[in-house]
Amino acid sequence: MSIFRPQHGGNLSWAAAQAGCLPTEILDFSASINPLGPPQSVLKAIRQHLDEISSYPDPASTILRQALSQLHQVPMDWILVGNGAAELLTWACRSLSELKQVHLVTPAFSDYGRALRAFGAKILTHNLNLPIDLPSRSVALWADLSEDFLLRSLAAFLSDPSFDAQEASASGLLLNNPHNPTGQIATKADLLPLLDCFSQVVVDEAFMEFLPQEDAYSLVGEIEAHPNLVVLRSLTKFYSIPGLRLGYAIAHPDRLAQWQQWRDPWSVNVLAMQAGVAGLQDIAFQGATYDWLAAAKPQLQAGLAALSGLTPLPSAANFFLVHCDASVLALQKALLQQRLLIRDCMSFAELGDRYFRVAVRTEAENVRLLQALADKLSDPLLSLSRPNLT
Amino acid sequence: MSIFRPQHGGNLSWAAAQAGCLPTEILDFSASINPLGPPQSVLKAIRQHLDEISSYPDPASTILRQALSQLHQVPMDWILVGNGAAELLTWACRSLSELKQVHLVTPAFSDYGRALRAFGAKILTHNLNLPIDLPSRSVALWADLSEDFLLRSLAAFLSDPSFDAQEASASGLLLNNPHNPTGQIATKADLLPLLDCFSQVVVDEAFMEFLPQEDAYSLVGEIEAHPNLVVLRSLTKFYSIPGLRLGYAIAHPDRLAQWQQWRDPWSVNVLAMQAGVAGLQDIAFQGATYDWLAAAKPQLQAGLAALSGLTPLPSAANFFLVHCDASVLALQKALLQQRLLIRDCMSFAELGDRYFRVAVRTEAENVRLLQALADKLSDPLLSLSRPNLT
Repeated sequence: MSIFRPQHGGNLSWAAAQAGCLPTEILDFSASINPLGPPQSVLKAIRQHLDEISSYPDPASTILRQALSQLHQVPMDWILVGNGAAELLTWACRSLSELKQVHLVTPAFSDYGRALRAFGAKILTHNLNLPIDLPSRSVALWADLSEDFLLRSLAAFLSDPSFDAQEASASGLLLNNPHNPTGQIATKADLLPLLDCFSQVVVDEAFMEFLPQEDAYSLVGEIEAHPNLVVLRSLTKFYSIPGLRLGYAIAHPDRLAQWQQWRDPWSVNVLAMQAGVAGLQDIAFQGATYDWLAAAKPQLQAGLAALSGLTPLPSAANFFLVHCDASVLALQKALLQQRLLIRDCMSFAELGDRYFRVAVRTEAENVRLLQALADKLSDPLLSLSRPNLT
Repeated sequence: MSIFRPQHGGNLSWAAAQAGCLPTEILDFSASINPLGPPQSVLKAIRQHLDEISSYPDPASTILRQALSQLHQVPMDWILVGNGAAELLTWACRSLSELKQVHLVTPAFSDYGRALRAFGAKILTHNLNLPIDLPSRSVALWADLSEDFLLRSLAAFLSDPSFDAQEASASGLLLNNPHNPTGQIATKADLLPLLDCFSQVVVDEAFMEFLPQEDAYSLVGEIEAHPNLVVLRSLTKFYSIPGLRLGYAIAHPDRLAQWQQWRDPWSVNVLAMQAGVAGLQDIAFQGATYDWLAAAKPQLQAGLAALSGLTPLPSAANFFLVHCDASVLALQKALLQQRLLIRDCMSFAELGDRYFRVAVRTEAENVRLLQALADKLSDPLLSLSRPNLT
């Protein structure tokens, strides 16, 4: 495989070059995007507003912020729209980097490290200690017992004798919830104590939309009571528009005003903004998405668990982190020849080559993946079914 | 008028609110966008690639960088595509801010100051000393004599006894060429000596596309010989896609690699990238644009010059800076009632209220503006035709 292995999921150009096909011919399980979208309402809005590309975007993204303000019951000046949540992550990390140090739960989305290093943050990692080289039986046991290991890890960190409350009060914390790549989730009640410990807490809720009921988990409702909290949200995953880029931050107006001075005034393109407005109004699409996920997610989980050598971890999100007894790189390569792309976890330094991540797709697409996995795992030439403890 | 006066041209939401109409009903002379676009080829490419919005953008913007590499005869790794030139300006200013200080030619596009201050740059301004309160006859004389005042100003600065060559060698220079808002242009031969004086030189060539022959002016051809040079280019103005956001930087690969670490990997949306590729191939649209400008620009200039109290400055770009004997704010407000938007220059601190900027539009649209200006300037109730030296 190319030495330019992508750092992120969804790099179809790279995958297509590997598979010798067009990017559109790849069935992509590597990026955790809603397979039902984009909704027709969004496509229609884009076509209807196409003539607006010849004018500059509204720097205030007014109509989208109005819609988000209604949705979350948060005043408009507490909301900033961005060119993807990734753009806002950059500015959140600039804010964090001004603190003494930044606590980071790992394994973490590799762009967290990129953005923190971009502004010279001093990073302190807290590893979730996932098992790396165990055979699947042990992992399965561990996974069953550890549904709340994200929280347990955070709690352990706070109660550790070496925890320095004074240091924390001058430091920042960056985590995501649900957690990527594990799919683990912490409740709001569990996270609230952290807000009192740290000078700034950034919670990336990029996959929160996929929970039919987020009230018990999302910190959005706590924002006005906590000026040190930043919540990042994405609209690209649920509405299947990652190519258009759209995310938003909810935080204290002073902080958001500062970010607006850091970035240029026109970061959100007009089509993304109109797509966001249309998507948020599309109750039917939202319902269809929750219906799909309620059926397709247990189907994929059960299918993965039934395969010898694979252990999917329990997940609150629309993807699964899967432990594999053998290195996943040969498996990934073999699947790519069938134009199926799974996400290796090499960019999560703590995970190495024994994990892959797969998005939940439609039931038919999940079956196609499960069948291909079964084929490859039983192929003696690939030596995938035996533990390969190098 | 609202206290939230826009800092930039093209803010149609604001203008529409002032005029009590829809943004699409405003004839916008405030943003200097090609009125012939977007080309059909670009609209077709966007429709054809609409299904790609459900995948992440190619982080390398490969196909657009290939096209730009061919166009400019510059290796691909010397090119970085951005979410508008404005995004790349932010990173260019971060680079500049690491230097001892940054020399800035003023009046300057207000986003230069925003981006430099965002990273704590020490800014040293060099004012072009435009006349502010003179009656139009004096301005006309001055404009005739001073077609090269941008260059003369730079030359004067370099030859000034107080110029400190050692300080300059540790400092940066930021300017645009053609210059906004004056429309003045410097030749490549005139700019080259500056590259030897400063540690870093950022030249914003956002309007260079509108010159049928740019070889004598653009520094793009000098890039490989000057690792301290950064050239910023825009594709949104010529191809009329400011709502989609698209620009690029040409600079040393090491510098661009650093900027890529500063920003997230997906800053350029898929539709903008496809629009750029289609536009660059559209030779017919490019020819039509040069033909339009060759006729409409002298028409608008002559029409403005013929109006009592107005003096358009000579311009190499697709806009004119116009001196007005009276404050332009009442004039702008009166024009807005006819749904015509001109760009006041209040955001250029050095210019105050005696200047406005207008884009060259189609000949028919220019006539509409000229007639409205003639009406308003002769309206005794508006008191616009008399010098109003406050």
